[in-house]
Amino acid sequence: MTADDGDGPDAARRMLRVAAGQLGPVGRDEPRSSVVARLIALLDRAADRGVELVAFPELALTTFFPRWYTEELSGHDHYFETEMPGPETKPLFDAAASHGIGFSLGYAELTPDGHRYNTTILVDGAGGEVARFRKVHIPGHEDDEPWRPFQHLERRYFEESDQGFGVWPAFGGLVGMATCNDRRWPETYREMGLQGVELILIGYNTPIHYAPDPGQNALQGFHNALVMQAGAYQNGTWVVGVAKGGTEEGVESLAQSAIIAPSGQIVAQAVTSGDELVVADCDLDWCRHYKETLFDFARYRRPEVYRRITTQKGVEVPPPRHEGAEP
Amino acid sequence: MTADDGDGPDAARRMLRVAAGQLGPVGRDEPRSSVVARLIALLDRAADRGVELVAFPELALTTFFPRWYTEELSGHDHYFETEMPGPETKPLFDAAASHGIGFSLGYAELTPDGHRYNTTILVDGAGGEVARFRKVHIPGHEDDEPWRPFQHLERRYFEESDQGFGVWPAFGGLVGMATCNDRRWPETYREMGLQGVELILIGYNTPIHYAPDPGQNALQGFHNALVMQAGAYQNGTWVVGVAKGGTEEGVESLAQSAIIAPSGQIVAQAVTSGDELVVADCDLDWCRHYKETLFDFARYRRPEVYRRITTQKGVEVPPPRHEGAEP
Repeated sequence: MTADDGDGPDAARRMLRVAAGQLGPVGRDEPRSSVVARLIALLDRAADRGVELVAFPELALTTFFPRWYTEELSGHDHYFETEMPGPETKPLFDAAASHGIGFSLGYAELTPDGHRYNTTILVDGAGGEVARFRKVHIPGHEDDEPWRPFQHLERRYFEESDQGFGVWPAFGGLVGMATCNDRRWPETYREMGLQGVELILIGYNTPIHYAPDPGQNALQGFHNALVMQAGAYQNGTWVVGVAKGGTEEGVESLAQSAIIAPSGQIVAQAVTSGDELVVADCDLDWCRHYKETLFDFARYRRPEVYRRITTQKGVEVPPPRHEGAEP
Repeated sequence: MTADDGDGPDAARRMLRVAAGQLGPVGRDEPRSSVVARLIALLDRAADRGVELVAFPELALTTFFPRWYTEELSGHDHYFETEMPGPETKPLFDAAASHGIGFSLGYAELTPDGHRYNTTILVDGAGGEVARFRKVHIPGHEDDEPWRPFQHLERRYFEESDQGFGVWPAFGGLVGMATCNDRRWPETYREMGLQGVELILIGYNTPIHYAPDPGQNALQGFHNALVMQAGAYQNGTWVVGVAKGGTEEGVESLAQSAIIAPSGQIVAQAVTSGDELVVADCDLDWCRHYKETLFDFARYRRPEVYRRITTQKGVEVPPPRHEGAEP
């Protein structure tokens, strides 16, 4: 960096007006047509504000169905999409293209060969598909656990993606995606940071109540911001976190959708837990303030001493030391 | 976790009373004997408060000498230690052992075969050496850069350690170390997290003015807390960050030493920028609240899609995409 590319506006900078299109609850009986109408209403407001890209939440089209157990996986197939766009989502794609607005949208994907993924599609301003991302870190559990007040059966209904974290040239920058629990893992951001990512879109459904350790409930908002702010700063990238929030089928979920700068600062944040548009002008060139200084990876990283990160999955505790022994 | 190992005190829990022994400035002409007396004064206060382990800062024994250029490296050898303890540091070791207090201490290490490292030693309550850690991520620059108001020549004076981040059984738990800039890199915490670390001791000297991008100056305190809080939470470990703060030889450095819980919460923090003892009771078993739930690595991590982290050092931008092409 040099002193003269500091704070001033510059016509040559790559400015992108981005929105988090937060959703409130989606009821179990709410039809997709209703949800799509809500998404289109957010797009219309985005168009009024000159937004170029709207990030929508994870599993945006239906209620968060992993909170219920079914013996047969196919019992929940009606929550899945077999084509994108399909007849019910086509109006969303058409509305976005008519506005010239790109978007990301999370949905449950059932592939022709029977695989189930927690997927997000990225669509450009002309309605063309840029990429699909399938969730990598699937939280929760596989089997019915009746002791919980509600289930979190993502590991029953979704496969872990082996495709990892891609980054795509789009919207004048380098764009990546992650989904909900992915945002808690620093490897998520780093994989994209190593591809030069400048904007990461992250949809989430985060129940306030965490049954395995309810002491974490009161920290949900803090943890949500902490991991996204750290991921943004440590990789010099913009991050958009967008919730499906509010109380859905009796379960309260975190809202607090936020747009975070490469400095780690939150520059815009939702104040409601309902349908809300959160807008920020993202200067994609601001990433250079971090990528070319403190976090110049090529100069400062030390992958030769990071080997545990890829050679082991779980914890391996070092062997006990004889007290007083030389190290 | 089960509901009944939540919040209540329990005689069987591994409680460790830890302190950050923050230092104010150390002048260029201040002799080691004076600094050692200040460290011993902090140890005495620690003993009064029943502290079992004190973390002291990076390069605690001298002024932060990388802010000055010398043509010949040996011109700064008087800032380095050739033995630890040596005649000047032996009184510190003796005082700690007489109190039965362990400590970590950062210093410039010159090895018998002529290598220079930014080193931290961990000493147990009986005065025995547990381990030495040598800084992995060396920030700053190699050559004189007179445009800066002061130099940050760590890359001139110190070699990068190839030993990485160890974790040692000590003080009833699993203890690791990192130094200053290491704390900004998520790989630092993860390497130790994968060894089950429960307490990470981090000394730092962080000038407020960051010459390559002064826009970051006002964010130094925010970034310092952000990276340590995220590292603690994402690995379910206690973190102690301890500064040499205040205005030293005209250069203002961040203080804000802090003790951070496995939740990411700051549980104790310095309020001065001088010599100050910051104390917290660290329940090492609290780590389980994170290590055995959300961050159960063996269950949830996906090392098979983290390969860029160890196979590449710098950024590799994906090739341009044909607009409208299928992903």
